[in-house]
Amino acid sequence: MQGLSTTAVRESLAPDGTVYRIPTVDELRSSFGEVARAAEDHRRGGGTVVAVQGLGFVGAAMAAAVAGATDGDGRPRHFVVGVDLPTEASYWKAAKVDAGLAPVASPDRSLDDAIRHAARVAGNLRATTVEEAYGLADVVVVDVHLDVRTRVARTADEIAVDLEGFEAAIRAIGRTMRPDALVVIETTVPIGTTERVARPILEEEREARGIDAPVLLANAYERVMPGPRYLESVRSYPRSYAGIDAASTRRVRDFLESFADPGGLWQLGDTASSELGKLLENSYRATNIAFIHEWTLLAERIGINLFEVVDSIRVRKGTHDNMRYPGLGVGGYCLTKDSLLAQWGATHLFQSDAVLDQTLAALRVNHAMPLHTAELVDELAGGLEARRVVVCGVSYIADVVDTRNSPTETLVGELERRGAEVGVHDPGVREWAERPDLDVVADLKAALDGADGVVFAVPHGEYALSPEELARMVPEGAFVVDGFNVISDEHARVLHDAGRATAGVGKGHWRRMGYHRLR
Amino acid sequence: MQGLSTTAVRESLAPDGTVYRIPTVDELRSSFGEVARAAEDHRRGGGTVVAVQGLGFVGAAMAAAVAGATDGDGRPRHFVVGVDLPTEASYWKAAKVDAGLAPVASPDRSLDDAIRHAARVAGNLRATTVEEAYGLADVVVVDVHLDVRTRVARTADEIAVDLEGFEAAIRAIGRTMRPDALVVIETTVPIGTTERVARPILEEEREARGIDAPVLLANAYERVMPGPRYLESVRSYPRSYAGIDAASTRRVRDFLESFADPGGLWQLGDTASSELGKLLENSYRATNIAFIHEWTLLAERIGINLFEVVDSIRVRKGTHDNMRYPGLGVGGYCLTKDSLLAQWGATHLFQSDAVLDQTLAALRVNHAMPLHTAELVDELAGGLEARRVVVCGVSYIADVVDTRNSPTETLVGELERRGAEVGVHDPGVREWAERPDLDVVADLKAALDGADGVVFAVPHGEYALSPEELARMVPEGAFVVDGFNVISDEHARVLHDAGRATAGVGKGHWRRMGYHRLR
Repeated sequence: MQGLSTTAVRESLAPDGTVYRIPTVDELRSSFGEVARAAEDHRRGGGTVVAVQGLGFVGAAMAAAVAGATDGDGRPRHFVVGVDLPTEASYWKAAKVDAGLAPVASPDRSLDDAIRHAARVAGNLRATTVEEAYGLADVVVVDVHLDVRTRVARTADEIAVDLEGFEAAIRAIGRTMRPDALVVIETTVPIGTTERVARPILEEEREARGIDAPVLLANAYERVMPGPRYLESVRSYPRSYAGIDAASTRRVRDFLESFADPGGLWQLGDTASSELGKLLENSYRATNIAFIHEWTLLAERIGINLFEVVDSIRVRKGTHDNMRYPGLGVGGYCLTKDSLLAQWGATHLFQSDAVLDQTLAALRVNHAMPLHTAELVDELAGGLEARRVVVCGVSYIADVVDTRNSPTETLVGELERRGAEVGVHDPGVREWAERPDLDVVADLKAALDGADGVVFAVPHGEYALSPEELARMVPEGAFVVDGFNVISDEHARVLHDAGRATAGVGKGHWRRMGYHRLR
Repeated sequence: MQGLSTTAVRESLAPDGTVYRIPTVDELRSSFGEVARAAEDHRRGGGTVVAVQGLGFVGAAMAAAVAGATDGDGRPRHFVVGVDLPTEASYWKAAKVDAGLAPVASPDRSLDDAIRHAARVAGNLRATTVEEAYGLADVVVVDVHLDVRTRVARTADEIAVDLEGFEAAIRAIGRTMRPDALVVIETTVPIGTTERVARPILEEEREARGIDAPVLLANAYERVMPGPRYLESVRSYPRSYAGIDAASTRRVRDFLESFADPGGLWQLGDTASSELGKLLENSYRATNIAFIHEWTLLAERIGINLFEVVDSIRVRKGTHDNMRYPGLGVGGYCLTKDSLLAQWGATHLFQSDAVLDQTLAALRVNHAMPLHTAELVDELAGGLEARRVVVCGVSYIADVVDTRNSPTETLVGELERRGAEVGVHDPGVREWAERPDLDVVADLKAALDGADGVVFAVPHGEYALSPEELARMVPEGAFVVDGFNVISDEHARVLHDAGRATAGVGKGHWRRMGYHRLR
């Protein structure tokens, strides 16, 4: 019950606007008592108790997937306790889950259904902010926040990882866990963290409690995908794992098999390999995106339509079919930081002098992509001072509402720096957490009204307009910048004939064809 | 008949050791007369005549594929004239093709069969060194050599492309071509070469001959793959193309459809896009190789088996299944130079200031891969002065005999620089063109006799030995360095127990397991 004030009334504001009063210590104790009794009932029935630490984007889906696992008779295998912090910033997550509501907005309705079903019908999902909850569990899954301080690092030395929150979370588990419980780190962490950060903390806390038994600890990173198959991705995506010893490895495999597709499980030789796997796969994707960005700049200057060329190359199945298309940039929580975690772990946890020069350069190239788009906008506008530019699309990929590290954020900042007055549209995002000062307009026609220029920054389905519809929406004399191949050559022709100028990222051929106005 | 001396007897030495006397001008004229009559006969029968300029690795396969195309009644569609230079360096190629022999060594027997059949049975394949042969053709396919002067460029300014031979080849076509013939550039060229180098030369030569009709010119790059499906790759691999105008585009499409899989044809908007496509796809591959090399160095230092991790990631189909494995390096004619051609074309043919920083850095990383392997060897040996190191594998990929820019060449040079006495083994390569001073030993046991150390540099099938066989072959006390995951953990254990030290590229975990002796 650490860190709780028993006096002033405190509130926690959820992103959807709901306000939750943070309960008093007595109230928390009382409701925790209920949770503990329900967990014990489940265990007496032969099931296991799983605590999920952190009810964010991954933890919420993980809690739902684990709670949804049933045995041959359709009975829940696990009783799941979601645990988060009783702080203003976090309490609402536990409150929502405990009320049977998904704490994250997602186009995947099955996540809402699964949480409601588990909390309200099956009764095997509860949430709490009381850390003694870890003491109920046979398995504790760590899904807490772990981030870098800045995503733009010019050198390995500039990378700073904030481990304090993670370490405190692991320490809370060590203080309360059952001696024979398994701790599974699912959070994406720097290489070496499981063995060299989490293990010593757990051992220290257990030793202080007089526990002699070796700690059971494993790494099993997640591949949760935002979008319509969000919950299903937890169950069916292949998953790598490794324990710190044979017993931990056996236990984590059994646990993963209880709710995930057993055919997709992949055992690695040690936890560092598992940690590295996650960082390597995301770095590969980020590097492939940076690769095409570099060629995008070349294609634009020499007047080539790179989309067409990439299409012609992607026919090479198995070697080239994952070549990326030009685009405004790359965002999200992972691709913008995981390479930094790898480098930081090598430097600080392994004391290695290895430097991922090219991988780190790729992150910088990706960060520069929206800045380049702002340049295209500036060029078309002939200067942005006091020009009204409307940016269409705020989320970091199409048709989701996740705005974390969205390249639109960088683009908007750069347009403002260049003097533009910026409006934003998005069909799904209602509150833009990173830019609460900007109103996100939901109606496209209304958003574009009075614009001097329009930027399509995310390929949302709503932007699939006919050339004529588009020409009607875009004010006369305005310019259009296409960040994601939303506008075809035919669109560009119609817009051009109707007096609008166009530029497209990776569409250098529009200059040659006269659809790109040069000043 | 330019550049021919009519006096001294000259000879041309083929790589297989055959010596061909270069005919006199009279002899060449006489045999060309036969070729011309045969071509005219074919044309009168309703077929077309195709000249293939350059009978090297691509041209030979192209000549065979085009000659092998038949109409619905099984009659050859084309009469093919292969054309090469009457020089000591090149004459043997035309001599071989004209005799029904493949001019390049390949594990693909169907290439030999196709050339023999076309030259001896169907009678629709001839070869000559007389440039008037282009004047016979409806289609001239350009497959000449075009290379950079050096493959290691630190900056864009350091890239030098030698276009003289290519320009001379195009000029020869312009001097002799039929006014309505189509010229197809299949050679991999810098972006802009078709429009900005070849076209003006052809137009100049045609103007000098009083030809008014617009030149028909196209780019259609090849994706010939070495190995057992070499000839088939010409016919069935997808192929991109573009003409300089609508008439050229139509003609090149018709030509490609006559011998290649029509479903694999991909029309691009302009010849620069086609040129860029080839350079982009090979740069992508080279960059993906460099990416994994950077992570290989990290994995080795922190003690991870990167092969295992890559396997666990390649399960992500469509996005990550082309992730490369660690290895000794990358070689071949294309992946080591095509990025340089792209940069050079942008700089010199488009006067663009775009720089492919990351792509060029990738080539440097790849070049450094065999140098890193030499370091591993040096470390295991504890110094290489007067140590005998045997390198197994000389070709640039497994189970082919192509040694162009093989990373083994770089490795051997670096081992020698560090003082080692180097021996080489290869199951297929008998003469190593790039290192004629070294005897390539064919028998593995004999090659390894007396070695202080062994490096497996290419994953040839022959190196798939059992741990016990390997331990018997490697002299006692010697060390083994595995450049391509030829040696499993079980092999390493057996070698270690038998007193041999081991290191593997990307196998840092062997250090931890004690199979890697550190001094």
